[in-house]
Amino acid sequence: MSKNSRVPYGPKQIAWCEQVPAGAEISSPENDPNEVYVSVPPSDVVGSFPQIDYRKFEIPPTGLNDAERDDALAQFKEFIDTQHASFAGFQGNQDQDYAGRYPYLLDMHANNIGDPFSSGRYTLNSKFCERAVLDYFAALWNNKWPHTEDSEQEDAGQRYWGYVLTMGFTEGNIYGLYNARDYLKGRSLLEKQQSQDKIASITRRGRETRGHHFVTSEPIENDNNNENAYSPVIFYSEDVHYSVEKAATLLELPTFKQLGDKLYPGQCPITQDGDWPDMVPSHDYDQDNPKSGSVRVEELTKLVSFFVSRGYPPIVVANLGTTWKGAYDDVPAINTMFETLGQQYPWLWERKVCYGIGDDGQKLYDIRRGFWLHVDGALGAAYLPFVEMAYNRGLIEYKGPIFDFRNPAVMSVGCSMHKWLGGPWPSGVFLTRTAYQLTPPDAAASFLGTPDTTLGGSRSAFSPMIFWDYFSRMSYEDNMQKALQTEQVAAYLETELFKFEAELKQKFGDDVNLWIARSKLSLTVRFRLVNETLNYKWSLDTNRLWVPISEGKQQQRSYSHIFVMHSVDTDRIDAFIDDLRQTSINDWHEAFPKIDVSAVPEAPNPGPSENY
Amino acid sequence: MSKNSRVPYGPKQIAWCEQVPAGAEISSPENDPNEVYVSVPPSDVVGSFPQIDYRKFEIPPTGLNDAERDDALAQFKEFIDTQHASFAGFQGNQDQDYAGRYPYLLDMHANNIGDPFSSGRYTLNSKFCERAVLDYFAALWNNKWPHTEDSEQEDAGQRYWGYVLTMGFTEGNIYGLYNARDYLKGRSLLEKQQSQDKIASITRRGRETRGHHFVTSEPIENDNNNENAYSPVIFYSEDVHYSVEKAATLLELPTFKQLGDKLYPGQCPITQDGDWPDMVPSHDYDQDNPKSGSVRVEELTKLVSFFVSRGYPPIVVANLGTTWKGAYDDVPAINTMFETLGQQYPWLWERKVCYGIGDDGQKLYDIRRGFWLHVDGALGAAYLPFVEMAYNRGLIEYKGPIFDFRNPAVMSVGCSMHKWLGGPWPSGVFLTRTAYQLTPPDAAASFLGTPDTTLGGSRSAFSPMIFWDYFSRMSYEDNMQKALQTEQVAAYLETELFKFEAELKQKFGDDVNLWIARSKLSLTVRFRLVNETLNYKWSLDTNRLWVPISEGKQQQRSYSHIFVMHSVDTDRIDAFIDDLRQTSINDWHEAFPKIDVSAVPEAPNPGPSENY
Repeated sequence: MSKNSRVPYGPKQIAWCEQVPAGAEISSPENDPNEVYVSVPPSDVVGSFPQIDYRKFEIPPTGLNDAERDDALAQFKEFIDTQHASFAGFQGNQDQDYAGRYPYLLDMHANNIGDPFSSGRYTLNSKFCERAVLDYFAALWNNKWPHTEDSEQEDAGQRYWGYVLTMGFTEGNIYGLYNARDYLKGRSLLEKQQSQDKIASITRRGRETRGHHFVTSEPIENDNNNENAYSPVIFYSEDVHYSVEKAATLLELPTFKQLGDKLYPGQCPITQDGDWPDMVPSHDYDQDNPKSGSVRVEELTKLVSFFVSRGYPPIVVANLGTTWKGAYDDVPAINTMFETLGQQYPWLWERKVCYGIGDDGQKLYDIRRGFWLHVDGALGAAYLPFVEMAYNRGLIEYKGPIFDFRNPAVMSVGCSMHKWLGGPWPSGVFLTRTAYQLTPPDAAASFLGTPDTTLGGSRSAFSPMIFWDYFSRMSYEDNMQKALQTEQVAAYLETELFKFEAELKQKFGDDVNLWIARSKLSLTVRFRLVNETLNYKWSLDTNRLWVPISEGKQQQRSYSHIFVMHSVDTDRIDAFIDDLRQTSINDWHEAFPKIDVSAVPEAPNPGPSENY
Repeated sequence: MSKNSRVPYGPKQIAWCEQVPAGAEISSPENDPNEVYVSVPPSDVVGSFPQIDYRKFEIPPTGLNDAERDDALAQFKEFIDTQHASFAGFQGNQDQDYAGRYPYLLDMHANNIGDPFSSGRYTLNSKFCERAVLDYFAALWNNKWPHTEDSEQEDAGQRYWGYVLTMGFTEGNIYGLYNARDYLKGRSLLEKQQSQDKIASITRRGRETRGHHFVTSEPIENDNNNENAYSPVIFYSEDVHYSVEKAATLLELPTFKQLGDKLYPGQCPITQDGDWPDMVPSHDYDQDNPKSGSVRVEELTKLVSFFVSRGYPPIVVANLGTTWKGAYDDVPAINTMFETLGQQYPWLWERKVCYGIGDDGQKLYDIRRGFWLHVDGALGAAYLPFVEMAYNRGLIEYKGPIFDFRNPAVMSVGCSMHKWLGGPWPSGVFLTRTAYQLTPPDAAASFLGTPDTTLGGSRSAFSPMIFWDYFSRMSYEDNMQKALQTEQVAAYLETELFKFEAELKQKFGDDVNLWIARSKLSLTVRFRLVNETLNYKWSLDTNRLWVPISEGKQQQRSYSHIFVMHSVDTDRIDAFIDDLRQTSINDWHEAFPKIDVSAVPEAPNPGPSENY
């Protein structure tokens, strides 16, 4: 026992050591957790918010009695209900009704372990509902469906494959880039040489068992005389979600910046000094340019061409609803880029990968593409199809870019469950085509079953039921109306903020500037950073963005933003603006803290001002 | 629209194209999903089980009406209740009572996004409960707690860091090995050179925003004159969970086999011919040896020594409750291996990594270990502490290996929520020590906040509440009783199977052999493969294992197994054995299908028979 084993612990605040039963060799606290951990709400938040007394939540070895647990949970509920009621700042729809649904799923452990298209031995699953949900997305995103396991079927490779994620779309980004990396490295899965065929028939359905059936093979030869043929390089814009950067690090996928710095220093084709930027530039660094936040395809093309001309297979990640500005990359333009590049470099669209030598001594080839286009549609892929439907009916002036499998270059797409659609926990869906999956090469003979094809292995059986429930209740029409509503509320938010800014100008003079901006069709409006209490109350996300402030110069500015999910309606926006108004009665800087501009970093404007 | 747009679809079985509203540009089915997808139950299952009519679950663009949805869900519930009632074959406790708990969490999207120890901007979270759960595990596994963010605190690096997983322990294995890889590659996270200090105070709490603050740096020099110093190699046994193999592939972490085949062919120190085996051998390939399934530490030591003597930093994964045999690797013996090797190779326990040059021109160093020991305790880490407690009180004859942070070599440990503890969906917990986290190097100056430290980013706020609920209700005493019960029921299962085998022998003669085996303290008993209907009804997992059949020879045998979680009690076991008995009335091979032994692969026995 450490010297501090007498730290008071748990709701009773009895000394820790007195609560440890005989025979338990465990470690005592080094000091009092209640004094160490951050307070809720944080200390810089002012006003009457429910306070969490952490001591009520500490769990001593004895557990809690019913009264103690009820006491703690009453505090938990008050806290979480309060934060829920004014939530406005993140991409998470709070408007849902699943409390009465599937109570029995909370009392069992159903699990969609392994591939969604095999029954598997874990019979307590909702895979048939998952398949219905996957088919729904395949139709919505113009992939070929239903998926088929019959490799004799002529178009089997062109059919979709995918699964419902257990994490949010971070999992979709990791999985998509994992698949992309190994596909472009020319890897194949080969069945292990064991004569298992005969017992196979007995255990045919145990498809997710062990995963010992396949080994990854590396390409054995490079027919292109291109030493970079199996060295993928990744491109994404500076507005990318942080999970894409994390996935690239996890997968040790070099970015064009890393490869450029190492092998081609000073040769960057888009900067005057030849230095490689960290990421592909986006339109604008923040101005109220409607394209703000979407990737500059012209620059992307120059960067991709640089590496393609040297034989590297490129991976491009397109953002569909960027994390902070809710902007959409122009996927059709990226598609055109790949089609145009393909004329000069045919291997981008078709190349031979030699993965082995057959019994007859002949080389065995697999035919593949030499690039991968992954669409991170965590936010936008859920509603842009319904915006497009409204546009086709003349109900809205714009539609977003066509992002789905109608673009021949698109190889994987997905979205989150918990953002625009809404769900109690993170989940999402990932789709690709069967031919792009890291599976046995086309030419390989029939095989036993698929290996463990998903990232998670064990997968939630509940999440597919949330999706199923949602889409069985919400027709296309309903979703179109919802999409129109969220767009209209976002426009309302922008308008009301401008009105409020005019109010403040009238009262405090012309140097009031709330930096209000909304990218085209975006569901978020960003504005000058508000104070900590307001950020806390409305759960606003905050960020620093580079903004051109004069010819040749840019500066970092701090912003808050509201994200218009279905749970954010005009009432909530009115209440928010009223809160801003009350806080600004004496001084608008009480709502929008003054920033010492001299302390804020400046940098050269990254490009010609007319483009920014 | 494809030629098959008239495929009947959904509960009404109306032609697909008639259900697509104006303006929706979506893809039609290529053929009828109801004819393509596997049936539930599978076609080789005989008897009266609820049948799923997939057409009821198809979701057309119109959605379903209430009656249709109720009809489908009544079928879903009947199916899932039936499979739940006889579930016995996997590591998933089915005995839980969360249906009435936290209904409000189903009607919102709470999210523990980012690091558990920072409040973050997403205020709608249960992080304070998560911290209480993490502290609980830190005590149970003898780590130092509470975690502290105060790097001035002397023992901050020795305190634990960890988080509640959003996937199952697959995420813990991926995350642990990701951390291990980058730690052993000598990487550090360095703050980007931007003078952000002053605005930092404004956005201090937005710790999980963007993640642009840090860049990964590679070691800039190799002080050890060892060209392999930053090339980790991974070791795990042939009983490892498939997720470890997947994680190694994902992370491109070479196994000793891959490195051995490539650089040291024919030099394997544990085989006569010098060939490298795929994985480290386990004790026995199946015999009813009580150690069966646990890694052979003697062989592991020879393999690790081979690579350590050549300067490679090793990663060892210890299994604590193997997937199939429920066996435990001898973690204290592995700990001793590292301590002994450390005498000859001090860099294993302390080495200098040069990560940069300071302003004064001096090299900047970080002090680290040169190995990583990760414990995959998905199953066993949840209950072995309570078995140990019972042992210390004289209530049980054996205890499992000490697997936790009492072993100085252990660097990461975790377990699943949904296995022994029980939970509605996959989750788990991962713990390490703060000093081993991939964070700014010890010597680096103060920093702004942590980057996006978890794999998922967005993380379930509900899973920590399941953990919290469980541990607040179940004292150590209760858990000890539960651990004793599951051990006793597993022993009961073994005994009853042997009794039943004797019954069959009496009736059908001495060539009846059910291959019954249970590793020491294991919660699973394996036995000869049963027929498909029995496998389906009881949700049994199946596998093929190598078994020594005679001096010098081994053969693959097919098994089923039962996993004794708390939901599997003696009544369920009696019912299962009675089912076997009824099925064997005329011929024991009706329950246990005959296998054509001549078709089953044989191979040389991998070692001296007395060891197997």
